[in-house]
Amino acid sequence: MRNNNVSIIGAGLIGSLLGIYLRKKGLEVGLYEKRSDLRDKNNVPEGRSINMALSDRGWKALDRIGLREKVSPMALPMYGRSIHDEHGETSFLPYGKENQAIYSISRRDFNELLINEAESAGVNVFFDHLCEEIDISKTSLRFSYADGQKFSKESDVIIGADGAYSSLRDAMQKQTRLNYKQEYISHGYKELTIPATADGEFAMDPKALHIWPRGMFMLIALPNPDKTFTCTLFLPFEGEKVCFDKINDKSDLESVFRTFFNDAFELMPNLTDEFFNNPTSSLINVECFPWQKNKSLLIGDACHAMVPFFGQGMNCGFEDCFILDELIEKFGTTSWELVFEKFQKIRKPDTDAISQMARDNFVEMRDSVANPKFIIRKKIEAKLHELYPHEWVPLYTMVTFSDMKYSDAYAQGRLQNEIMDKVMSDPRITQNYKDINYEEIIHLIETARMV
Amino acid sequence: MRNNNVSIIGAGLIGSLLGIYLRKKGLEVGLYEKRSDLRDKNNVPEGRSINMALSDRGWKALDRIGLREKVSPMALPMYGRSIHDEHGETSFLPYGKENQAIYSISRRDFNELLINEAESAGVNVFFDHLCEEIDISKTSLRFSYADGQKFSKESDVIIGADGAYSSLRDAMQKQTRLNYKQEYISHGYKELTIPATADGEFAMDPKALHIWPRGMFMLIALPNPDKTFTCTLFLPFEGEKVCFDKINDKSDLESVFRTFFNDAFELMPNLTDEFFNNPTSSLINVECFPWQKNKSLLIGDACHAMVPFFGQGMNCGFEDCFILDELIEKFGTTSWELVFEKFQKIRKPDTDAISQMARDNFVEMRDSVANPKFIIRKKIEAKLHELYPHEWVPLYTMVTFSDMKYSDAYAQGRLQNEIMDKVMSDPRITQNYKDINYEEIIHLIETARMV
Repeated sequence: MRNNNVSIIGAGLIGSLLGIYLRKKGLEVGLYEKRSDLRDKNNVPEGRSINMALSDRGWKALDRIGLREKVSPMALPMYGRSIHDEHGETSFLPYGKENQAIYSISRRDFNELLINEAESAGVNVFFDHLCEEIDISKTSLRFSYADGQKFSKESDVIIGADGAYSSLRDAMQKQTRLNYKQEYISHGYKELTIPATADGEFAMDPKALHIWPRGMFMLIALPNPDKTFTCTLFLPFEGEKVCFDKINDKSDLESVFRTFFNDAFELMPNLTDEFFNNPTSSLINVECFPWQKNKSLLIGDACHAMVPFFGQGMNCGFEDCFILDELIEKFGTTSWELVFEKFQKIRKPDTDAISQMARDNFVEMRDSVANPKFIIRKKIEAKLHELYPHEWVPLYTMVTFSDMKYSDAYAQGRLQNEIMDKVMSDPRITQNYKDINYEEIIHLIETARMV
Repeated sequence: MRNNNVSIIGAGLIGSLLGIYLRKKGLEVGLYEKRSDLRDKNNVPEGRSINMALSDRGWKALDRIGLREKVSPMALPMYGRSIHDEHGETSFLPYGKENQAIYSISRRDFNELLINEAESAGVNVFFDHLCEEIDISKTSLRFSYADGQKFSKESDVIIGADGAYSSLRDAMQKQTRLNYKQEYISHGYKELTIPATADGEFAMDPKALHIWPRGMFMLIALPNPDKTFTCTLFLPFEGEKVCFDKINDKSDLESVFRTFFNDAFELMPNLTDEFFNNPTSSLINVECFPWQKNKSLLIGDACHAMVPFFGQGMNCGFEDCFILDELIEKFGTTSWELVFEKFQKIRKPDTDAISQMARDNFVEMRDSVANPKFIIRKKIEAKLHELYPHEWVPLYTMVTFSDMKYSDAYAQGRLQNEIMDKVMSDPRITQNYKDINYEEIIHLIETARMV
């Protein structure tokens, strides 16, 4: 039995990377994308992209196929959060140690590079192929083109890397006993831009991720190589206070921006046009199980779409590819069902954990980072990590600057959180935090770990 | 603006009843069913029907349009559970007071009657209409016929009464921010039959719902007017012990039946044929919200499919129709959005409650009813209800023989359960239960309610 023909649905970041991995294993790989080729310059972006923040797990997956050098020039390091208060004052909160950074990268540029790499590796990439129907028991697919023509294909293996609205998952939902859950958060987002200054420079510090935390809502900005910033505004769709539903004209919009984001507003000459022309997108969390049926598998957002607030969606999807590739390495390309079963079993607790952490982090980003006690808390944790680099690793560091299992990071994070809650409960902590007995805290965490 | 044209998707029990209700309000009603007309005698049943158990909420909904008399002749009263042990001994556990019964009724016969009534009332019923596409913003539908032809329709209002695999819900999942969850239980079911005896009589007591509880699995049987019983076998799909996956031939099947259901086995001459020809069906729980978008609404299983173990799926769907009809009565047929918003807000906590109770009841049916202590517990509760008919109403009675809100029944049930746990924790309860101080128990529940 032939077993080397793999169809990947979706030529986004995850599908393209996976295509390269599998092709390098000697497999015949077809990569099917419903959209047009984004390398075609007539293909205008939709204005709904949040910049990606590439971190350690993502780099590790790129290293596996030697892509770090090609990707580096398009990735800008951000060493911490630059927090903007309502008066335009900023404070800098490092993400980790001195040289640790997450890297801002344009989704489109990155995707173009990966598609080029996939093609060079010998992956057959097909655009304008809408996957209309999948028969999971036969691993057969039917596509339709923009002109209405249909095309059928049989495959040995089908992998759905087709995102939060996956067609393969749809098929599984109808053809198998799939447990499935989708939840929208109450907030939506809109892409905006801060252009380069008149003399062609960055309008703000390009070595930081900028945040304007305003309690129930926030604005963020990530730098691009062309000296612009891609901004994302997160607001509730509807409500009593500031929300998308209540911004209906230029004057509503300016009033919100002048009140809450005045320093950013001064840097956004195209705000009105962008706000009213770019779509308002929603944010979904998807969980399902099993991810596998026979020789079909879901990967990336298709089985675990998460909210973007930990910057891990892409990194987690890349790590999916890495782990899947390791399993194929171990068990070969003839035991797909075994590989897929192992994959979902290993991976599900980790993707559940990062999805939950991503939801938790929304509160941290939009609210807590504006709180002086939170900043002290972060400082204490950074000091603990400096003094006891193995005994105390901040949650952000475990997730972003390591490849430990997300579920372990989550569990450790919870233990540390409980202890930090105790530390912070001292009413005089704002004055006393420099004289804390760090050894005692380490003793507490070690005891907690033994329980 | 025209506002009186309603399209209902699905001519099952709920869709047909709702069609009659709305037609009686003077609305133009189209009822679209993807299956062929089940009144056509060439249309062979699929062998996947669990008999319905009509109870008070269902009768109340039929009373609203004067259908009780027409339905009664096809409904057989079951006054309690007849529990079969492994030696074929039976014990009878009443459902409520002397005259309280739930009514066994064939899904197909009942559906035929409701479709006839809908047509007589002036509902336009269309069969073989597969709803392929719905545009929620335009309230327009596209159907396809078996021959591949398409047909489009605009409507003022769309109601999806199209069950657990609803097309309207599918459309909402793609076009709106629908929170959605589907979960399969580990068990499946298969329809089987106990025919009438050689002299044309019922082979078992027809005034009971028969249960063979066997811990992790069970068999049930409900009587039909033609003196047969429709049986349903519930087994795990897969596992170490008795499960569908492990019954692969006649000898596997007979071994299971002889071991666990020997008295039923003696009454099932067609067991092997039925077992291997009838499909194994799965059991799904569906929750979602919102049920409404603009002038489209989900109702019945389409928004709250539940497992069948409380016998409330149909009754709950009928109650949906009743409550919706009351709201239309109150707010008129020009404020659909208001009516639908009120409907989902009122109804969601109740359908969540009955879905949960249905899952809980699976354990009771397959396991607890075989436990002598459970039977004593039920007797104590029955006595409490007899002595204090208003102060103590068993959960089963609240759900089945009243129309109180499911969510209130659930809350009361939990309080009573806690108290019964205490009562049953007396190690000598098996001997002492006749000398219990009932007044003290009533005092406990009244105190609990005040907290």
